[in-house]
Amino acid sequence: MMKEDINLRLKNVEGHIRGIERMVDDGVYCIDIIRQIQAAQAALSKISSAILDNHLNSCVITAIRGDDPSERERVINEIHELFDKTNRSY
Amino acid sequence: MMKEDINLRLKNVEGHIRGIERMVDDGVYCIDIIRQIQAAQAALSKISSAILDNHLNSCVITAIRGDDPSERERVINEIHELFDKTNRSY
Amino acid sequence: MMKEDINLRLKNVEGHIRGIERMVDDGVYCIDIIRQIQAAQAALSKISSAILDNHLNSCVITAIRGDDPSERERVINEIHELFDKTNRSY
Amino acid sequence: MMKEDINLRLKNVEGHIRGIERMVDDGVYCIDIIRQIQAAQAALSKISSAILDNHLNSCVITAIRGDDPSERERVINEIHELFDKTNRSY
Repeated sequence: MMKEDINLRLKNVEGHIRGIERMVDDGVYCIDIIRQIQAAQAALSKISSAILDNHLNSCVITAIRGDDPSERERVINEIHELFDKTNRSY
Repeated sequence: MMKEDINLRLKNVEGHIRGIERMVDDGVYCIDIIRQIQAAQAALSKISSAILDNHLNSCVITAIRGDDPSERERVINEIHELFDKTNRSY
Repeated sequence: MMKEDINLRLKNVEGHIRGIERMVDDGVYCIDIIRQIQAAQAALSKISSAILDNHLNSCVITAIRGDDPSERERVINEIHELFDKTNRSY
Repeated sequence: MMKEDINLRLKNVEGHIRGIERMVDDGVYCIDIIRQIQAAQAALSKISSAILDNHLNSCVITAIRGDDPSERERVINEIHELFDKTNRSY
C-alpha cells in the first residue's frame, strides 16, 4: 500500500473519531459509543497490518539478506516485540 | 468522567492520528509508525474503559434494580457481548 | 452451563495441550504449534465467556438488586476490571 | 528454548487447568475462576512467544537468506498472518 492510501485510511479514522465526539455531545447510549470506538480501533489494526506487510516485504528481507548480523538481529527483535505486544499476556 | 473530558481525550487521539499521518509523509520507519498506532489504540481503550465505568454505575444499576425483566436482560447481554468482543477468541 | 459441562470443556483443553506436547516432541513446524496454542487459548476464552454468562445472570443480578451498596459496588468493579484486562491497552 | 523446556511449561499449564477444574467442582467464585483461566492463557502466550523466537532465529532467517523466493514469501506470509490473528480487529 502506498503512503497516500495509508494516509487516506488514517484520515478516515480521524473522521470516525470526530463522529464519536458528536455522539458523546448528543448523549448517545454508552454501549453504542463503545462499539464505535472499537470499530475505530479495528480500522487502526488494519492500517498497522498493511504497514507491517510493506515492512516485511522490504526492510525485513533487505536486512536479513544483508551482510550485517546486527541489522538482522534488530529486525528480528522488532518483529518479536511486536508479536509480544499484540499477543495477549493479560 | 464528564462528556467534556471524554471529548478532550478523543480530540487528543485525533491529534495523535494527525501526527501519525505526518510520520507517514516524512517516511518515518514502519515499526515506529506501528508503535504510534498501537499507542493511539491504547488511548482509545482507556476512553472505552471510562465510558463503561459511567455506564455500569448508571444505566446498568438502574436497569437491574428496575422492574422490567427485559431491560435487565438487555443490559446484561450487552455487557456479555462486550466481553466476548474484547476477549479475543482468535 | 453446568459445572459438568465446564469441566468437560476444560478437560478437552487439557487433552489439546497434551497433543501440543506430542507435536513439540515430534518436531512439528513451529508455526503449526503456535496455531494450536492459539486454538487452545480460544477454547479457554469460550469457557470464560460461559462462566461470565452464569455470573452475570446470578451473582451480579442478586448483588445489584440487593440492599448492600458495597456488594453492588464490588460486582460492578469486578466487571469493569475484567473488561480492562481483556480490552488490550498494549 | 529447548523442546524439553517448552514441554515442561506446557505441562505446567495442564496442571493449572486441572487446578481450575477442582475450583469449578468446589464451587469457587466465578470471577476467581475466570482470572485463573486468564492466567493460563497468559502462560500459553509466553510459550508461543518463546516458540516464535526460535522460529524467527532459525527457519525465518534460513528461508529469507535462501535462494527460493517462494519459501521466502511463505515465511513472510506466515508472520504477517500471525500478527493479524493476534492484533485486535474486533
